Amino acid sequence: MIIPLVGIGVDVHAFEEDGNDRALWLAGLEWPGERALSGHSDGDAVAHAACDALFSASGVGDLGTHFGTSRPEFKGASGVTLLKEAARIVRDAGFEIGNVAVQFVGNRPKFGPRREEANRVLSEAAGAKVTVTATTSDGLGYEGAQQGITAYATALVYPVGAEDKSR
Amino acid sequence: MIIPLVGIGVDVHAFEEDGNDRALWLAGLEWPGERALSGHSDGDAVAHAACDALFSASGVGDLGTHFGTSRPEFKGASGVTLLKEAARIVRDAGFEIGNVAVQFVGNRPKFGPRREEANRVLSEAAGAKVTVTATTSDGLGYEGAQQGITAYATALVYPVGAEDKSR
Amino acid sequence: MIIPLVGIGVDVHAFEEDGNDRALWLAGLEWPGERALSGHSDGDAVAHAACDALFSASGVGDLGTHFGTSRPEFKGASGVTLLKEAARIVRDAGFEIGNVAVQFVGNRPKFGPRREEANRVLSEAAGAKVTVTATTSDGLGYEGAQQGITAYATALVYPVGAEDKSR
Repeated sequence: MIIPLVGIGVDVHAFEEDGNDRALWLAGLEWPGERALSGHSDGDAVAHAACDALFSASGVGDLGTHFGTSRPEFKGASGVTLLKEAARIVRDAGFEIGNVAVQFVGNRPKFGPRREEANRVLSEAAGAKVTVTATTSDGLGYEGAQQGITAYATALVYPVGAEDKSR
Repeated sequence: MIIPLVGIGVDVHAFEEDGNDRALWLAGLEWPGERALSGHSDGDAVAHAACDALFSASGVGDLGTHFGTSRPEFKGASGVTLLKEAARIVRDAGFEIGNVAVQFVGNRPKFGPRREEANRVLSEAAGAKVTVTATTSDGLGYEGAQQGITAYATALVYPVGAEDKSR
Repeated sequence: MIIPLVGIGVDVHAFEEDGNDRALWLAGLEWPGERALSGHSDGDAVAHAACDALFSASGVGDLGTHFGTSRPEFKGASGVTLLKEAARIVRDAGFEIGNVAVQFVGNRPKFGPRREEANRVLSEAAGAKVTVTATTSDGLGYEGAQQGITAYATALVYPVGAEDKSR
């Protein structure tokens, strides 16, 4: 039997104080007219949580290890760029990616009309199925106060070339 | 090898201001004497998170897609009704359900004495093993302030009729 | 086919008011100079979330069931002791452990330099691969206010001796 490994990733980003001056990027998409999120990169919490879930499942560090201030070439990098690179790192470490699932919690933006587009862009970046679901925090917490948003992700990866030990 | 897909769901509900006038429903159970949660439906965050984890794993939209204001027949629907319908949708989309696990975070109600009952009712609704664990937020956040509660869920699903590619 | 079960665990601990008088224990490690977390045990939220994810996946109760006030022998027990015992309980219930993954959210301590050490200590305790990733909440919520921290965990377990039903 090939035994999968499960991982989890959580990412929080605050909205920019002056977030109306530039575009919001989330789940690999640009959202015109929405307030931008802050961050060392583009603040794409959905893509970042997906990266961390992949790193978590394969045990190869985390977002800070791979894309932190020690790697200035990723400063300002898009969520899609980071997810593509995370998938490459995980595959280089000897894993295949099963799937990644992300739950977005926040009032804005509204994912419904663009969910399929987000799923497609993120899946292309990861080279594996990525799905996004979205909900609000019912007005509670920093998400309800529209100070920021949270993305929760989980992922399955498989050791490549693992022998089948099923009986 | 049949490859499972993992999903994640998070649901937050605030307590009703006048929540002592009607019963709390949570994890498919009525909790007499406990303050009710708000919501388009019955506010059963445990059941809703379970639904979203199933939708997330199978990639067939989310709670808003299936039970939102566009489907008024689900207005006020119970958590058990929604979970049963979510399981049907996921199976119709070609998946079998492995299991669903939900972590409840909140001060009230106390799950210990009724955990087995909750597991049984939710498992019957999903037609698959559903388990509930419970904890508090150590007095922090909106859960600690008893303004609301959070449920975090994960699920595994399997493509039905998938060919066995194990070597 | 041997079908794995997935679980989820979330644990929150507040920092001690007088937390500078004793050491912080987190992820099975002592962190000299860091403010301690509160709790019935040593407040090791990373280890506790790992325990709950294991209980959640195998459906054998939760942290309160096994290590609550009804079992005073675990009062003040270390995270490593609890994780070792949780792994024993889950194996006794007929499961093997696939892996456990934990995402830490908080400003302090900084995991980067000690991640490998944490992974090793927790993996030894569980007798299975445990990985820790870490991030901040971007200044938001109780984590951002440095009132407390959150650990989110997921785990895979397998029924032992399950027959291979793969075609």
